[in-house]
Amino acid sequence: MNDPVQVRFSGAGGQGLITAGVILAEAAMLEGKNVVQTQTYGPEARLGSSKAEVIISAGQIAYPEVTVPDVLLCMSMEAAKKYLPKVRPDTTVIIDSTNIGPEVTCGGHVHRLPLTQAAVDTGSKVVANTVALAAINRIAGLVSTQSLKNAVLARVPAKFRDLNERAIAAGEALVQTAPATA
Amino acid sequence: MNDPVQVRFSGAGGQGLITAGVILAEAAMLEGKNVVQTQTYGPEARLGSSKAEVIISAGQIAYPEVTVPDVLLCMSMEAAKKYLPKVRPDTTVIIDSTNIGPEVTCGGHVHRLPLTQAAVDTGSKVVANTVALAAINRIAGLVSTQSLKNAVLARVPAKFRDLNERAIAAGEALVQTAPATA
Repeated sequence: MNDPVQVRFSGAGGQGLITAGVILAEAAMLEGKNVVQTQTYGPEARLGSSKAEVIISAGQIAYPEVTVPDVLLCMSMEAAKKYLPKVRPDTTVIIDSTNIGPEVTCGGHVHRLPLTQAAVDTGSKVVANTVALAAINRIAGLVSTQSLKNAVLARVPAKFRDLNERAIAAGEALVQTAPATA
Repeated sequence: MNDPVQVRFSGAGGQGLITAGVILAEAAMLEGKNVVQTQTYGPEARLGSSKAEVIISAGQIAYPEVTVPDVLLCMSMEAAKKYLPKVRPDTTVIIDSTNIGPEVTCGGHVHRLPLTQAAVDTGSKVVANTVALAAINRIAGLVSTQSLKNAVLARVPAKFRDLNERAIAAGEALVQTAPATA
């Protein structure tokens, strides 16, 4: 893993990507890392797209804005059009294949996973963000599974804890059963 | 109001300051503003303090890091020690007098308000962040009351909406009854 590692979550409003960013930041903080977590809202947000960014480092973080991400999540077509062109050949890209068809291509190491469908199968599409977090984390090795779980459970309301634990398991299972790149 | 306006929320972990930052950012976005909202986690966070920052502008935001804030909220002694020395003479400072005694002084335009006590009186100290948001917003005129209310209600779980509506009213009432500076 690069240090610092720059992670960008992108998708539609309502998919919980800001919460996902905050949770990843808190998980990394639990591991003693320095973290900067940013949301940028502008005209794009008013058109329904959403973006959250997390920079994680064992050392000081000099520049708090993600330029080209090391890890990119895309959960909507609009986000895919906007952010997939902005990757490096070594960027790890996770595409939600429930919402984005196979005709959408990009550079980088691409993983196509049915994140939203897995959340629906788990009980509710509201945990698509948790499924995505668990999948990304398993692919990119950002924090330990235990730290991620602790951060998720610390932030979600008590009555949704079971659902979110199942969502973490579902996200990890997606990675274990999917081809490494597709 | 300056443009861009830089707002810093500081206090202890668990006081909901990150949520407050996200809500203020979403309220400003509802008004068509450009917004950058950042959390920085480091050794300080592991010692129990928490910080969230929001930059709001009608135009592009060039540098996404708050230097000296235009508006500063302090909700814990530890945050007061850390951030009160870093204000300008024209910074608007809101101090939670439930947690920070009158012996703590600083420059800037200081407003001492019993934010946490008002939240407890409203029903629960978990809405101290909403009380603080409403009070700050009334003092600094960041967004309309309606935009703030819409952003709060969009983010809190349905069963806490009434409590948060009362917390907004309580925060605004604190400003109306308190001396302008103290």
